[in-house]
Amino acid sequence: MDFREATMMRTAGELADYLGATLQGEANQRISGVASLESAGPEDLIYVDSAKRAGRAAASAAKCVLAPANSRITGKTVLEAEAPKFAFAKAAAWILPAVAPRPGIHPTAVVAASARVGHGVHLGPYVVVEEDAEIGPGAVIEAFCFLGRRARVGENCRLHPHVTLYPGSQLGARVELHAGVVVGGDGFGYVYGEGRHWKFPQIGSVEIGDDVEIGCNTTVDRGSLGVTVVESGAKIDNLVQVAHNVRIGADTVVASQVGISGSCTIGKRVMIGGQAGFGEHASVEDGAIIGGPSGILPGKVVRAGQIVWGTPVRPLEKFKQQFAWSAKLPELVERIEKLEGELEDKRKK
Amino acid sequence: MDFREATMMRTAGELADYLGATLQGEANQRISGVASLESAGPEDLIYVDSAKRAGRAAASAAKCVLAPANSRITGKTVLEAEAPKFAFAKAAAWILPAVAPRPGIHPTAVVAASARVGHGVHLGPYVVVEEDAEIGPGAVIEAFCFLGRRARVGENCRLHPHVTLYPGSQLGARVELHAGVVVGGDGFGYVYGEGRHWKFPQIGSVEIGDDVEIGCNTTVDRGSLGVTVVESGAKIDNLVQVAHNVRIGADTVVASQVGISGSCTIGKRVMIGGQAGFGEHASVEDGAIIGGPSGILPGKVVRAGQIVWGTPVRPLEKFKQQFAWSAKLPELVERIEKLEGELEDKRKK
Amino acid sequence: MDFREATMMRTAGELADYLGATLQGEANQRISGVASLESAGPEDLIYVDSAKRAGRAAASAAKCVLAPANSRITGKTVLEAEAPKFAFAKAAAWILPAVAPRPGIHPTAVVAASARVGHGVHLGPYVVVEEDAEIGPGAVIEAFCFLGRRARVGENCRLHPHVTLYPGSQLGARVELHAGVVVGGDGFGYVYGEGRHWKFPQIGSVEIGDDVEIGCNTTVDRGSLGVTVVESGAKIDNLVQVAHNVRIGADTVVASQVGISGSCTIGKRVMIGGQAGFGEHASVEDGAIIGGPSGILPGKVVRAGQIVWGTPVRPLEKFKQQFAWSAKLPELVERIEKLEGELEDKRKK
Repeated sequence: MDFREATMMRTAGELADYLGATLQGEANQRISGVASLESAGPEDLIYVDSAKRAGRAAASAAKCVLAPANSRITGKTVLEAEAPKFAFAKAAAWILPAVAPRPGIHPTAVVAASARVGHGVHLGPYVVVEEDAEIGPGAVIEAFCFLGRRARVGENCRLHPHVTLYPGSQLGARVELHAGVVVGGDGFGYVYGEGRHWKFPQIGSVEIGDDVEIGCNTTVDRGSLGVTVVESGAKIDNLVQVAHNVRIGADTVVASQVGISGSCTIGKRVMIGGQAGFGEHASVEDGAIIGGPSGILPGKVVRAGQIVWGTPVRPLEKFKQQFAWSAKLPELVERIEKLEGELEDKRKK
Repeated sequence: MDFREATMMRTAGELADYLGATLQGEANQRISGVASLESAGPEDLIYVDSAKRAGRAAASAAKCVLAPANSRITGKTVLEAEAPKFAFAKAAAWILPAVAPRPGIHPTAVVAASARVGHGVHLGPYVVVEEDAEIGPGAVIEAFCFLGRRARVGENCRLHPHVTLYPGSQLGARVELHAGVVVGGDGFGYVYGEGRHWKFPQIGSVEIGDDVEIGCNTTVDRGSLGVTVVESGAKIDNLVQVAHNVRIGADTVVASQVGISGSCTIGKRVMIGGQAGFGEHASVEDGAIIGGPSGILPGKVVRAGQIVWGTPVRPLEKFKQQFAWSAKLPELVERIEKLEGELEDKRKK
Repeated sequence: MDFREATMMRTAGELADYLGATLQGEANQRISGVASLESAGPEDLIYVDSAKRAGRAAASAAKCVLAPANSRITGKTVLEAEAPKFAFAKAAAWILPAVAPRPGIHPTAVVAASARVGHGVHLGPYVVVEEDAEIGPGAVIEAFCFLGRRARVGENCRLHPHVTLYPGSQLGARVELHAGVVVGGDGFGYVYGEGRHWKFPQIGSVEIGDDVEIGCNTTVDRGSLGVTVVESGAKIDNLVQVAHNVRIGADTVVASQVGISGSCTIGKRVMIGGQAGFGEHASVEDGAIIGGPSGILPGKVVRAGQIVWGTPVRPLEKFKQQFAWSAKLPELVERIEKLEGELEDKRKK
């Protein structure tokens, strides 16, 4: 277990070129890392999203700051960018060394003879790779990962410790699975008859595209007869449940503890807030935003671009209106009582 | 790691006999698997639940279909059954080969001398079995499973990779635990005093009956002083929390991400929807249905056969009525304003 | 794997002294364990919280009972204490043997040469300890735990099987992490640009104080640029999500399946009920109580000592009032209709 972690030294000028940012200051200023305003050292890059934080940026030890144009940050080399947070993320991906164990197969790894292991792969201690599994070049598989029969891991994937791939699970390229992720567990479906639950067959598979990242202890079930799909570029947080036969569209973002029931279809570039829950066969069209925590009823369709909230979900504006009125219910009751009193008075007269 | 996976070839006639279905067509039609309408090959069995899907069934490559009586599916061998989905699940259990690793103890398994391992058991790579643990005949324990001291696994259980049984946990026969399940962790209870939390003793156990299935990364805590019980035939999905001293009744079904707090009692054949949450000491009587996501207050009793929803839960019909009125609050406010206006007018006259 | 589990025999008199309780009965009565009323043997200590349960206590086989003063429990040695449940927890901590594997390093443990392992440490089978990790004296690290580079585990910590510490994670003394806990996974943050999500750098760390307990399969993410902090004495249940840059205050209690989004600040001695969810940058001041399941909006501040409930959260009393009125909406509608009818009548006259 020996690590590649080469420092990638850059200059402010190189970074300005790479980002298409406008340089104000020292083009030769060395940059070797990224940091928050508070924790930065002189060679760390920092960023501010708005000119309001210019004062705090000026107080940082960092010598180079990404900022909106005309932020008036004195005493620093400033890289002016339209979207400083985006530029910061892009810069970090360029500057920061990829920290990963070196290629090599740990002597304790148990690899079936029929498994295919690509060039430059790292298999950590106590990795188990079953028959006919396939690992693409450059993949890093950390300790205690389990790759079931016929599982496929694409090139340059990263599996953190304790990941389980059930037999037949398929990962594209550059997929990152965090510790404890389980891909390909049986879907949850039973048919009751003759006094007991019969398991509906769970013999499908899971297909995960390229550049997907999945957080710790999240579970993605295989399809029952078909396939569970996570399209390329989707990002899924910790402790999320993705049930059998779900499809999650490209570049969709799913926050922590979301639960997606069987056969839901989620479109592309959808945003799903934490703890949202989807009933079976719900569908969300491209670009919609589901606030968390919300509850989506079985079979519900959320239209493209809609922003919804509540349980059951409704358009955010409608939710706000209803919520505001709920808060005023006691006042409404008073107004009704007043009306009743007035009519009573009239009656008495 | 060598697998038993014998194909179990049947004919349509044999299947009709087994299921008590009425055969229309070729009794000799070979059936070697089950599939969805879209993915089926000629020898796969498919099913349709209603006559509406007869057209799609006819278009499938499958030569044999389970369907309701008089479904008018042309060009196929039809097995007519009252409940085709149930018949399909039952047929699948009969046709599909049990896919499981062969018996045998992997050389890397660490098994205490005092552990008792039954006949025909499979222990995968890197399994750890502690002192006085007991594994019944035919059980399959996959890679990285941990069986603590005095844990007991009944006959023909299946433990997928990375399952943890804390010391003393008891499983009946044919229990299936999916990857990452933890049984027997300490309950969560503290008493505050003298400026800090004192842990309430968590020295009880967990008893799981026969034919229970538990999904990936679900946690079942041991009793604090008593026992946490999951009765036979119960089915629990992924990422569910079952706290100390809970009892889950026979054949109850618990969907994903449900949270059941300490000392709750759930009856038999209860259905619990995804993400429902139970406060401590709540109880649900036999056959009730808890919609997901719902919130059940501590100590609440849901009566036998009731269907409830919402937070806090109330009967589904009541919830719907209240929800409908909430949606009309703005309209109610308008009506109140109109009444106020009219009375104001009268007053002025 | 050999266990230390010495029985710690005490007498009722010794226990009364230790707890500051008033002894009524046999000072020489031997006490060797704790139990529930129903499961107790003669030498087990039991407790009742109120005089109402005195009858049930009298029926227990236990010879010694902790009870409030003047509980009139006949035929038992009674230890009178102001807070019997607290006294019981404190007594249990004193009486019950610490059940833990003996010190020693299992031959299958893979420990980097540069790791520092303190005196009296237990490393179970298949533990992996990476470069420059540090384990304090007396720590117990069970099977399949993974300690990444530079991780630090304080003295007398207990890590149950399958715990993952990402590189750099820091634990104080006497921290207990249950099976499947993941500390230090990447935070969940992306910036969209140029047609894809760019990962915001997740290069911070996690610092966990002393005497913290974390339940099974809970995940605690590292800070993105800063630090995620769990202060001393905090207790976290199973399947909880703690996101990047969160701070959880000392002695705060977090129940199961709670989700805390990025950059939330939770004060000291806060109580958070099961399944509560926090939007980003929310903060809760010391001593507040968040009922579960509740939803806290991003940026929301819950004031010190407040008790809140609902989604979005509001003060509990307000929630109850609103909920009561919601339940009466159909009645309100009838009252409005009646008013409308009366005015209509007047108009006709």
